[in-house]
Amino acid sequence: MAVYTQLSAETLAELISHYNVGGLVSAKGIAEGVSNSNWLIETSTARFILTMYERRIDLSDLPFFLDLLDHLAAKGCPVPRTIHDREGASFRWLDGKAVALIEFLPGVSVDHPTEGQAYNVGTVLAEMHLAAEGFASSRANTLGPATSAQVLAECGEAALAEIDPQLPATIAQAREVAEAWPSDLPRSIIHSDLFPDNVLMRGDEVSALIDFYFACTDAMAYDLAVTHAAWSFTSDGLGYRAEIGRSLLQGYESVRKLGKDEREALPLLAQGAALRFVSSRAQDWIETPADALVTRKDPMAFVHRLDFYRREGDGIFAE
Amino acid sequence: MAVYTQLSAETLAELISHYNVGGLVSAKGIAEGVSNSNWLIETSTARFILTMYERRIDLSDLPFFLDLLDHLAAKGCPVPRTIHDREGASFRWLDGKAVALIEFLPGVSVDHPTEGQAYNVGTVLAEMHLAAEGFASSRANTLGPATSAQVLAECGEAALAEIDPQLPATIAQAREVAEAWPSDLPRSIIHSDLFPDNVLMRGDEVSALIDFYFACTDAMAYDLAVTHAAWSFTSDGLGYRAEIGRSLLQGYESVRKLGKDEREALPLLAQGAALRFVSSRAQDWIETPADALVTRKDPMAFVHRLDFYRREGDGIFAE
Repeated sequence: MAVYTQLSAETLAELISHYNVGGLVSAKGIAEGVSNSNWLIETSTARFILTMYERRIDLSDLPFFLDLLDHLAAKGCPVPRTIHDREGASFRWLDGKAVALIEFLPGVSVDHPTEGQAYNVGTVLAEMHLAAEGFASSRANTLGPATSAQVLAECGEAALAEIDPQLPATIAQAREVAEAWPSDLPRSIIHSDLFPDNVLMRGDEVSALIDFYFACTDAMAYDLAVTHAAWSFTSDGLGYRAEIGRSLLQGYESVRKLGKDEREALPLLAQGAALRFVSSRAQDWIETPADALVTRKDPMAFVHRLDFYRREGDGIFAE
Repeated sequence: MAVYTQLSAETLAELISHYNVGGLVSAKGIAEGVSNSNWLIETSTARFILTMYERRIDLSDLPFFLDLLDHLAAKGCPVPRTIHDREGASFRWLDGKAVALIEFLPGVSVDHPTEGQAYNVGTVLAEMHLAAEGFASSRANTLGPATSAQVLAECGEAALAEIDPQLPATIAQAREVAEAWPSDLPRSIIHSDLFPDNVLMRGDEVSALIDFYFACTDAMAYDLAVTHAAWSFTSDGLGYRAEIGRSLLQGYESVRKLGKDEREALPLLAQGAALRFVSSRAQDWIETPADALVTRKDPMAFVHRLDFYRREGDGIFAE
C-alpha cells in the first residue's frame, strides 16, 4: 500500500480538465492499493478516487474492471461508478500509465466485524452476484487452485521450509484441492478478494465494495468461500469466529439460497481460497527482502485457515 | 512521506468520539509528512487531518506548534486550526503516541509556481510574521547555521565525497556562514520550512500554510531566505527562476518592508538556508540504504543553490 508516483498539481489539474467534474480543489495521495497509486481528489463539484495502474494489472483487463463498476452501480449495488471523460473514455493515459477517475464513496473498513456487519456483507455479496448476471464481458480467473499449486511448487520445498516447517506440505495439499475442484457450480462475476479492506461501512451498513481488480468469472460459492476466509478469523488465522462465519452465510442466503452442490463444495472451496493466499503470500515473502520497508504478510495466517477448513470444514458448512 | 502506523476504524471512531465533531464517516491514510502519519478524516460535520507524531518531533514542543496554529488562525492567517477535544486538550494519546486533530483546508501544492503565486506566498509569509508577534510562547531554532556546520562535519569528508566530490567543501563554507551569522535582525515566529509542499493554493491564492513543525523564534528575513531557496529554483537547483524570486520578495515587501540590515543580510541568510538542506539531506543520504523504498533527496540540489547565492546573492538581493 503506497503511492508509487508523484503527480504535480499542474498535471492533476490538466488531467481533471478532460472530465466534466469542475476544477481541482484538493488532491491527497492516499495509502491504499497494493498494485496502484491512488489520490483522493476534490473538485468544485464532488470527490473522486484517481487510480494510476502501476503493476500486476493486465491493462487489457481494465475495460472489464471499469465497465463492471458501471454495470453494478446501475443495478443499485454499492459500488463506485467510473467517471468517463468528455470523450466517453473510462480511462486515460498519463506519463505512460493508465489512470481512471472513480466515484468517491464514504465509509470505513472495519478490522473486527460485528455479526451485523458480516450478515450485511453476505447480503451485498449475493446481491452483487445476481446483479452481475447481465454483464456482457467475462474474464477468466487466473488465480485458481491450479495456479496456487503451481506457485507453491515453484517456491520450492526448501524456500517454503525456511519460512515455516509446515509450509512444504501445502504443495501436495494444493494439488489435491486442484484435482478435486468442481467445475460445474453456478457462475457469475465474482469479486474474489472481498477482504474487510475492500468493504466500506457506515455503522452496520455496507456503503461500498471497492477494489474489483481481481474480479473474474467463476463460481459464486467460491467468492463466498474467499469472503468467509477473509472475515471469519482473527488476523493470525488461529481463531475461528464462528458467529461471524455463520452470519456471513446467513446474510448471503437471505438473498441467494445456495444449491446443495454449492454447500457441499464449500469445505473444498474454502481450502482453495486459503491456498490462494498461502501461495501469493509465500511468493511475496520469498521475493521481498526482510529489511524492505513494506510489510510482508505472513503466509502462515492462511495455513492456519487451511488447516481449520481441512479439519472442520464439513461441520461448519453443513446446513 | 508515509503512513507509518495502521489505525483501525474502530480505534479512529473511539478517538473521534472525544471531540465534538460528529461521527466518523471516512478515513484515508494520506502520503504526507515525513515525521508523522496523517489521515484525512471525514465526520458527519466536517473534514480534518489527523496527525500522529512518529519521530523527529520533541513532544514538549507540541503545545507550541498547536497553539501557534490557533493563534495565527484567530489573526486571520490561512492556517488550519487545532481542534480541541471535549476537555479542551489540543492533543491526545493513542497507542502511546501523541495525536492531534487539525482543520482540513482545501487547496493543492504547486510544483512550478507562477509569478502571481510567488507574490502571494510572499504576502502571506509577511502577514504571518506580523500576526505571530503577539504569540506568547517561543521556541529556539535548533537547525541554525551552527547545526548545519556540525552535521556536515559529523558526516565526514570521506562520506560526503562519496556522494559528490563537491560536497566536502561545504563543511568549511558552513563554518564561515555560521561565524558571519547576524544575531540582531528583527525576529518573530517563523515557519522556516515553507516549501511549495507546505503551501496549499487555489489558483493564485494561498488557501493554507501547513506543517509548522519546524516553526521557531528567529529572524524574519531568514524565513524569507528559506522560502526564496525553496521556491525560486528548478528542482535540481541548477536553474534560478529570477521572476519567481523577485515576485516573492515584492509580495513580502508589499506587507512588510525589509530593513536595510535585513536586505544586506539576505545573501548570507540564503546561503544558510541552502546549507540547512544540504546538511540534512547529506545526513539522510548517508543514513538511508540505497535500496530502501523511500526516496533519498539529493543534497546537490541545494549545493547548487548555495553556489548560486555565493556567486549571485549580492546582485539578486540588491534593492
